[in-house]
Amino acid sequence: MDLPEDGDPLDLDRQVCFPLYAASNLLNRLYRPILAELGLTYPQYLVMLVLWKQTPQTVGSLGDMLYLDSGTLTPLLKRMETTGLISRTRDAGDERRVLIDVTAKGRALRSAAENVPAVLAAGIEIDATSVAQLRDQVRGLVAILHGDSKNADTASS
Amino acid sequence: MDLPEDGDPLDLDRQVCFPLYAASNLLNRLYRPILAELGLTYPQYLVMLVLWKQTPQTVGSLGDMLYLDSGTLTPLLKRMETTGLISRTRDAGDERRVLIDVTAKGRALRSAAENVPAVLAAGIEIDATSVAQLRDQVRGLVAILHGDSKNADTASS
Repeated sequence: MDLPEDGDPLDLDRQVCFPLYAASNLLNRLYRPILAELGLTYPQYLVMLVLWKQTPQTVGSLGDMLYLDSGTLTPLLKRMETTGLISRTRDAGDERRVLIDVTAKGRALRSAAENVPAVLAAGIEIDATSVAQLRDQVRGLVAILHGDSKNADTASS
Repeated sequence: MDLPEDGDPLDLDRQVCFPLYAASNLLNRLYRPILAELGLTYPQYLVMLVLWKQTPQTVGSLGDMLYLDSGTLTPLLKRMETTGLISRTRDAGDERRVLIDVTAKGRALRSAAENVPAVLAAGIEIDATSVAQLRDQVRGLVAILHGDSKNADTASS
């Protein structure tokens, strides 16, 4: 990626990453009261979305899907085990792997969560086409960053 | 915002906010080793960008610029005071306001930070036009979310 050469490179308005960070913070703030009713934080909600779709998952597969490293994911999963939403068990076939499953309590939460996207969407003054477009573009960036971040991980290990 | 009515609303791939969260996480991971050399986390780097531009700032003005609430910002600023990058002083004219300024140590860090955008950009395989386009679109989303989140704050207080 080339940077334009004029102006101050440290100007906040020129930072590429800052609007993404800001959008992520603001979305988190909008989600907070909605997810609080379910007793979930945003990253916990993402974990549940994956698990409601398919279980069991390994910590590695969850991390790959959510772009979270295990240093972030493991404490998150431990908290969710404590609150009774998920179970963590060693894979009998491979002791290095931890398998994550939803509990009955975690599964029961799904029907309450079905309203979350609609409640959130109702609170945002933006049309669905713009959102879908933006989502796909940010996804493109994620794919590029993910490749780069994997390379960086390899280079540093 | 209207949601399309077909399909599972809880499908991870359909979440609008998830790619933004993922992009923010991945960018944070790319920034981490670069900023670690300066002894800064990403949110601390953003605070320094604002302060290098203009000081003093109130906690409120920093929060407005960085879209962070004071519950997030205050502990962050306290840590930065401890590491000697900034000073926090009560405004003599208005005791409720805390003024944030850079110290000599914080100011000296600026020249080392000037390389950060270029080092980061060199590691990302994306052309500058796509990035600028994406940045402007995400900024549009931020403006919309910011309006909504301010309204939500008002409604809940």
